[in-house]
Amino acid sequence: MITRMSSLFLRTLREDPADAEVPSHRLLVRAGYVRRVAPGGYSWLPLGLRVLRNIEAVIREEMDGIGAQEIQFPALLPKEPYEATGRWTEYGPNVFRVVDRKGADYLLGPTHEELFALTVKGEFSSYRDYPVMLYQIQTKYRDEARPRAGLLRGREFVMKDSYSFDLDDAGLARSYALHRDAYLRIFERLGIDYAVVAATSGAMGGSASEEFLALADSGEDTYVRSTASDYAANVEAVVTPAPPEQPVADKPAAQVHHTPDTPTIDTLVEFLNDANLGRTVTAADTLKNVLVKTRMPGEDEWTLLGVGVPGDREVDMKRLEAALEPAEVALLEEADFTANPFLVKGYVGPQALLANGVRYLVDPRIVRGTAWITGADKVDHHVVDLVCGRDFTPDGTVEAAEVREGDPSPDGQGELVTARGIEIGHIFQLGRKYTDAFEVDALGPDAKPVRITMGSYGIGVSRLVAAVAEQHHDDLGLVWPRSVAPADVHVVVAGKDEELFAGGERLAEQLSGHGVRVLLDDRRATPGVKFADAELVGVPTIVVVGRGLAKGVVEVKDRATGDRDEVAVDDAVSHLRELVRR
Amino acid sequence: MITRMSSLFLRTLREDPADAEVPSHRLLVRAGYVRRVAPGGYSWLPLGLRVLRNIEAVIREEMDGIGAQEIQFPALLPKEPYEATGRWTEYGPNVFRVVDRKGADYLLGPTHEELFALTVKGEFSSYRDYPVMLYQIQTKYRDEARPRAGLLRGREFVMKDSYSFDLDDAGLARSYALHRDAYLRIFERLGIDYAVVAATSGAMGGSASEEFLALADSGEDTYVRSTASDYAANVEAVVTPAPPEQPVADKPAAQVHHTPDTPTIDTLVEFLNDANLGRTVTAADTLKNVLVKTRMPGEDEWTLLGVGVPGDREVDMKRLEAALEPAEVALLEEADFTANPFLVKGYVGPQALLANGVRYLVDPRIVRGTAWITGADKVDHHVVDLVCGRDFTPDGTVEAAEVREGDPSPDGQGELVTARGIEIGHIFQLGRKYTDAFEVDALGPDAKPVRITMGSYGIGVSRLVAAVAEQHHDDLGLVWPRSVAPADVHVVVAGKDEELFAGGERLAEQLSGHGVRVLLDDRRATPGVKFADAELVGVPTIVVVGRGLAKGVVEVKDRATGDRDEVAVDDAVSHLRELVRR
Repeated sequence: MITRMSSLFLRTLREDPADAEVPSHRLLVRAGYVRRVAPGGYSWLPLGLRVLRNIEAVIREEMDGIGAQEIQFPALLPKEPYEATGRWTEYGPNVFRVVDRKGADYLLGPTHEELFALTVKGEFSSYRDYPVMLYQIQTKYRDEARPRAGLLRGREFVMKDSYSFDLDDAGLARSYALHRDAYLRIFERLGIDYAVVAATSGAMGGSASEEFLALADSGEDTYVRSTASDYAANVEAVVTPAPPEQPVADKPAAQVHHTPDTPTIDTLVEFLNDANLGRTVTAADTLKNVLVKTRMPGEDEWTLLGVGVPGDREVDMKRLEAALEPAEVALLEEADFTANPFLVKGYVGPQALLANGVRYLVDPRIVRGTAWITGADKVDHHVVDLVCGRDFTPDGTVEAAEVREGDPSPDGQGELVTARGIEIGHIFQLGRKYTDAFEVDALGPDAKPVRITMGSYGIGVSRLVAAVAEQHHDDLGLVWPRSVAPADVHVVVAGKDEELFAGGERLAEQLSGHGVRVLLDDRRATPGVKFADAELVGVPTIVVVGRGLAKGVVEVKDRATGDRDEVAVDDAVSHLRELVRR
Repeated sequence: MITRMSSLFLRTLREDPADAEVPSHRLLVRAGYVRRVAPGGYSWLPLGLRVLRNIEAVIREEMDGIGAQEIQFPALLPKEPYEATGRWTEYGPNVFRVVDRKGADYLLGPTHEELFALTVKGEFSSYRDYPVMLYQIQTKYRDEARPRAGLLRGREFVMKDSYSFDLDDAGLARSYALHRDAYLRIFERLGIDYAVVAATSGAMGGSASEEFLALADSGEDTYVRSTASDYAANVEAVVTPAPPEQPVADKPAAQVHHTPDTPTIDTLVEFLNDANLGRTVTAADTLKNVLVKTRMPGEDEWTLLGVGVPGDREVDMKRLEAALEPAEVALLEEADFTANPFLVKGYVGPQALLANGVRYLVDPRIVRGTAWITGADKVDHHVVDLVCGRDFTPDGTVEAAEVREGDPSPDGQGELVTARGIEIGHIFQLGRKYTDAFEVDALGPDAKPVRITMGSYGIGVSRLVAAVAEQHHDDLGLVWPRSVAPADVHVVVAGKDEELFAGGERLAEQLSGHGVRVLLDDRRATPGVKFADAELVGVPTIVVVGRGLAKGVVEVKDRATGDRDEVAVDDAVSHLRELVRR
């Protein structure tokens, strides 16, 4: 296939678009791959559409390879299934809603769990039918509050979403593993440098869940990874390693101290270190008790919850919320303190909480036998050497404390550091949330119904175009990996002589005859303009048909390394075929 | 590629769906190609998606073949461009409208003229850039009042829409001709029996326009065609051949007759034939004057219009409206007659109209020298021998009279008959409606701006799946043409013996190794169930691996003709490859 730039619908831009915040956005617009039509809505020009289709083809191959079957749903979906699962309400302003001429409610699908579950229920009925994996590559819609960064956060975008349906948890684990492996192959083939990050399941419900993040400073997603191992996790998913338990017998008795003028942990620590405790204490020896209230979906009443974390750390509300999901979490208001006079603001200790039936969850570091400085439930008083398992017994642990760089990695290898990435994939073991909602059962071998368990797996297809561009560009422009490039070879005719145009045309035709996709710059423009465009457009191999042609050579340039070779015209086709095959 | 029915996401249905009105709908649902999700919204199951993709591939090849370039727009489009052309209002309830979280208005694109015009304006500026043809294969939305017949009239559907941009009318004619030829090839390749029908341009504006209709009794579109030639046209586009003019000199003078009790044309004719005129008259000799009022877009005031047609024909309001477009047309109300006392209801003649400055347009049959019986502008009186060109001179002609079977074909060959079809394609010479709205100019060689002229060309891609099914089915099921079939060969293992399964698997693998797409029925079901499903699913060639295998033969059945051949297993692969290649 030859694409001639003399007639290609392409105009490159010398200037960065005013609204471009990230390199991929800047370059995809400048190189004429996409154009903005509305906030978060882009049109794909010819070269951009090819990159998108190349990415789709890789994904399709790998999905077909694991036995997933492609189907396609409408984007305009009726309200009823989303009402049945509560998502019609939960999505709030994040979905586009449509009312038809008869007044019926629709939404533009942000994800299709409901429809897939209903469709499988409609077609399949026996345990013999399962397992089944279905996918679609489809346009999705989300009314993002802040569409930004070009294709990275759009309101209309292409996703591959797939769903697995299994008879039991072991089957779900297999389907999940198949998807995980397929995703590794997909991102590998696309030349993406990525991390697999342990994730909480978010609003989707369910248990095991991992995200695939393309490493990029421009990424919106923060995560932590180990300095010494493959461990990576969303901050919400970091599991704090518990220290060993200690015997309580030899611990000194708890002592209440009068601690006036210690409004902060720092002042308290300083006060106690001046008070001759016989040892030096730090903020890490204090136990900070944060009061919140929680409410499960469908409940009217809030319930108090005490959260204990070491005093050198803040409570990370996002981690706490993720840990308590699906419960709602709110901070206490003044009225809550008034209604519960045992809560002595600034001096709340475990003992009053437990004595008054308030659920009390602690950071995993607070194990049996550890001694803490904490509130004494009395104004201006703290207690020292309050021992966990002796003086108080929490109701359990909770991942609520902030995660910090330098924390030990949960896998015991190295320390955690923070990194940024672009979410390009997400795999979930959803479980039975949707199959329960729609009663998706298979008739088992014993003629009893078996509730199907479900997995959900997404890839941001259009976002991948930007993610690849974020990782594959330089100051001059895009530098596509071969698997996604809009052409294999960019033949640039550099000069005005008709022989050069004829030579370029001949080379392009020979290459095309061998199945090489050629972008041929046959424009009547200066070599400078053409070279600049070739760098900007980013086809991996650039062939310059120029002055050398007279002595029988063309120049072959590697876009990524900048390496140039003179190659005899007669050898050029075989040389380039070899390069392209690599 | 082998698709195994043991794991295929497919359940065929023995019963017709309750809402199915037409064969394609009935069979596409029963054979598991599509499922209804909402009114006018369907999901594509695996086999259906393949047929859709096959059709897309044919269209893409032919569009690329004429040099059209594929791009892709969002479906969710901002209001502003549609407001600029007036279509935001014109579409009325026929489009889905969306308001985003910030209150901005959007629509789900029913067609993309505005966006393509704006995009070309954004990229191209010089006459050297033109011509350019762009297309997309994209999901479109229309809020149809009555979605029906499955894929034939949906609210979410796939269209190929392309747009040509030329510097002058000759260029537009070339782009139009390229599209017309490509469409002929596309419909030929898809095995469609179709008619090319002259069309009015409808709400899109512009001049030359043709529709491609798949012949089908279930079609919603009526058209007329000649019994003796290729002539075919929408009823709105039929041009009435004018008879020769006649000399007026030898015509008898007009005579007013008192014609009491003649409320209808029939009673008038009967009365006059009893009145010794010296000849016999018929309804075709009378001139019926119908009064309407018209208003151009943007005008406040209505204008009276008289329409004269031979009395043996009704005025066809759709033809009249098409002829007067973009004007609005309404019938007169009582108040209009009151305000214009020269309009003597039931006795309106050309003379009062012309005397009072009312525009008067007549059917093309009413030429100079023809004599008519018509209203005398006086209650109970008609005039006989009122001669066109002597006693009255109309302001022009208008295509308003009904078209009837048996009318002479406008091309002079044969008579018109009525037929029905499914609109599968439509090509338009739009002209400058949209380029005027957005001032899409190219800088000409003389540095003066040249206003671009535009063509618009659509194919109903998802509708074609149904159109092909309408034309290719029998009582047992679908009968796909090879170009669109979801597989090349359907291998049915008929029997329980493991050898048969092994034989079927072996044959499938050999075929697949040669690039033949195989649907393999490896289910543990009875031969009867499998045969019925094979007929229903409609793959063109069915191979039965059954009892004959023991003596080294398989049965090859042609789905369309029902012909069966026994073929030696050893020859089966080459035999089938040959069949598939045809």
